[in-house]
Amino acid sequence: MPSGEDDLIARYFRPLATAPGALGLVDDAAILQGQGDDIVVTTDAVVEGVHFLAGDPPGTVARKALRVNLSDLAAKGATPAGFVLTLALREAREAWLAPFAQALGEDASAFRCLLLGGDTVSTPGPLVISITAFGRVPAGRMVTRTGARAGDRVVVTGTIGDAALGLDVLKGGAAARALGGEAEAGAFLSGRYRVPEPRVALAEAVRDHASAAMDISDGLMGDLAKLCAASGVGARIEAVSLPLSGPVRYLRDRGVVGFETIVSGGDDYEILCTIPGNRLDSFRKAAARTGVPVATIGEIAAGAAVPSLMDQGRELMLSRLSYSHF
Amino acid sequence: MPSGEDDLIARYFRPLATAPGALGLVDDAAILQGQGDDIVVTTDAVVEGVHFLAGDPPGTVARKALRVNLSDLAAKGATPAGFVLTLALREAREAWLAPFAQALGEDASAFRCLLLGGDTVSTPGPLVISITAFGRVPAGRMVTRTGARAGDRVVVTGTIGDAALGLDVLKGGAAARALGGEAEAGAFLSGRYRVPEPRVALAEAVRDHASAAMDISDGLMGDLAKLCAASGVGARIEAVSLPLSGPVRYLRDRGVVGFETIVSGGDDYEILCTIPGNRLDSFRKAAARTGVPVATIGEIAAGAAVPSLMDQGRELMLSRLSYSHF
Repeated sequence: MPSGEDDLIARYFRPLATAPGALGLVDDAAILQGQGDDIVVTTDAVVEGVHFLAGDPPGTVARKALRVNLSDLAAKGATPAGFVLTLALREAREAWLAPFAQALGEDASAFRCLLLGGDTVSTPGPLVISITAFGRVPAGRMVTRTGARAGDRVVVTGTIGDAALGLDVLKGGAAARALGGEAEAGAFLSGRYRVPEPRVALAEAVRDHASAAMDISDGLMGDLAKLCAASGVGARIEAVSLPLSGPVRYLRDRGVVGFETIVSGGDDYEILCTIPGNRLDSFRKAAARTGVPVATIGEIAAGAAVPSLMDQGRELMLSRLSYSHF
Repeated sequence: MPSGEDDLIARYFRPLATAPGALGLVDDAAILQGQGDDIVVTTDAVVEGVHFLAGDPPGTVARKALRVNLSDLAAKGATPAGFVLTLALREAREAWLAPFAQALGEDASAFRCLLLGGDTVSTPGPLVISITAFGRVPAGRMVTRTGARAGDRVVVTGTIGDAALGLDVLKGGAAARALGGEAEAGAFLSGRYRVPEPRVALAEAVRDHASAAMDISDGLMGDLAKLCAASGVGARIEAVSLPLSGPVRYLRDRGVVGFETIVSGGDDYEILCTIPGNRLDSFRKAAARTGVPVATIGEIAAGAAVPSLMDQGRELMLSRLSYSHF
C-alpha cells in the first residue's frame, strides 16, 4: 500500500539510484565507503525565483541544482562520489517530475556522480532543491582557500559574466534589448545562466597544481576577495585579461555592460585558482589535455587587502563585489 | 568587505563549526575522513507549516531539524559524525537566528554531531531547513530494512503517538479540548511533537542485535509495512503491547483517540527494529544500560503481507497506515 510519496520516489528517482550504496532508495540512509580517502562534502540549494526562474524548464533546473555542487567538488580537486537530494515541492506533477528526473539522471551519469538518497517533502511555497554532493580526494589533499601566496598566478576557467547577462536576457533587461535580433547570442547567455558547466574534468589538475581554489558562484571579484582573505593576501587583476565570451564582448564594446557587472555578477560556476609560477606551465598542459580553457588574469600580492581590478593602469572602483542573499 | 550572508554565517554558525573538517566554514566544502569506516548518509528536510508551525520557537525548530536526522542515524546503528545545513530564509532576523543557532549548537554538542558546512539562501516562501547528517559504522555493518525474518520480535523504543496528538494539541483540536485544564499533559505532547528524542545512545545495541531497523517518522504501522516489504515478510502487532505515554493512555481511555491515530500518526522518531528471538535478552540488557526504554510489540510473520494490528484477538481495520506528503 505505497503512499503517493513512495510512488513518486519509486517512479522517478529509483531508476537513478544505481550505485550500490544507494540501496535502491528503500532504506533511510545511504552508504559511502570511506576506504582510505577523505570524503569532500559540499551542499548548495537552489530556490525558485532566486536561483532559477519559475518558468525555467524542469530539465535545466535539475542540471543546475546538481552542477553547482559538482562545480564545488571540482574546485576542491575532488572526484565525484555521489549525492543526496532534498526536494520541497508544492505538488507532485508528472509533467514536471518526469523531465526533472530524466535530466538529473543524465547529468548524474555523465559526471559519474550517482544519486544515493534523499527526501521529498511538500511545501506551500516556492520549489527548493537542496543537494549535498560527495567527492573523494586522497587523504589530506583537498584544495582549500588558504594556500595562495604572493606571486602565485590567478587563473580562471571558461568565460566570466555570461550567466549574469543571461539572467538579464531572460528578464528582458538592457542586455536583451541590446542583443535585439541576435537570438543565438541571447540563447548562449541564458543557457549559461540555466545550465552551468562544472569543470569536473579539471579536478585532478587543480589538485596537483593549485595552491588555493574555489568555484565562482557569487561573482569573480567577491569570491577572489574571500580566497584572498582566507589566505591573508591581496591580488591584482587585469581587466584586459578577463576571458569573455563573444556575446559579453559585444555588449561590453557597445557600452551596455561594464567590467563591474561582469566581475560581480553571480552564477559563473567557473573555477578560480592560484597557481605558483613554477607550476603554471605544467598546469596549462594538464588543463589542455582535459579541454577546459584556462586564463591567467592576474597575480597574488603580499599583504591582506581587497583585490584590485586594473584597466589600462588605472584601478577600477567597484561598488559591489558579488551577489549576497541578505 | 563581507556581505550580509557571510556576516550571518560568521556570527551565528562559525561558533558551531568546531570540528577540524569544517575548516571554520571559510571553505566551499568540508572534509570527512573516511578512515576504514562506512559513512552512513541521511537527509531530512523540515518545512514551515508542514513539519513545524510558523509560530514554533526557533530553538525547537533547530532541534527538530537536527534530531530527525540523528534519529535516522541511530536506527541504522551509526555513530554521529557531523552534518551540513541548508537554510532557506525569508529574511535574516537576529531575533530568530540567534536562538536557532544557539539551540542547534547545544544539540550538536550534546549528540556529538558537529556542524561541518552548509548553505544559506533567501526564499520568498516558507522557511525550509534541510540537513544531511553523517554517521560511521564499521565497514559493512549498517543496519538495513531488509534483514527481518519470520519469528523475529518487533521492538520499538519510547512511546508511540505522542507527537501526532501533540500536533493536535497545538492546533487546538479534539485532544486539546479533551485535556482541558491538564496543561502538563498538553505540554508533554506538544513537546514531543516539537522536539523528538533521537535514540543515539541505542545505536550500538541496534547494530549488534537488530536484523532490520528504521526510525518511525511517518507512523508506526506504515513504517513497519515498509520494513516488512523490504524484508519480504509480514508482521502481527498486538495493540495491547504498544507503549503509550500517560497522556495518550488518558485520551485513549476516554475514547478521544483510537489505535488507528496512534499507530498511523507521524513524527514519533522512535526506533523500530526486529530482533531475533535468541538475541532479545542481550538486546534488552544492552538497552537497559543506555536508559532507552524498549518494548516488544509483536512478531515478524512469514510471507510478504501488510502487517496486521490485533486487538483482543480481532484484527483492526486501518484506513491509513501513515502520513504521506503527496
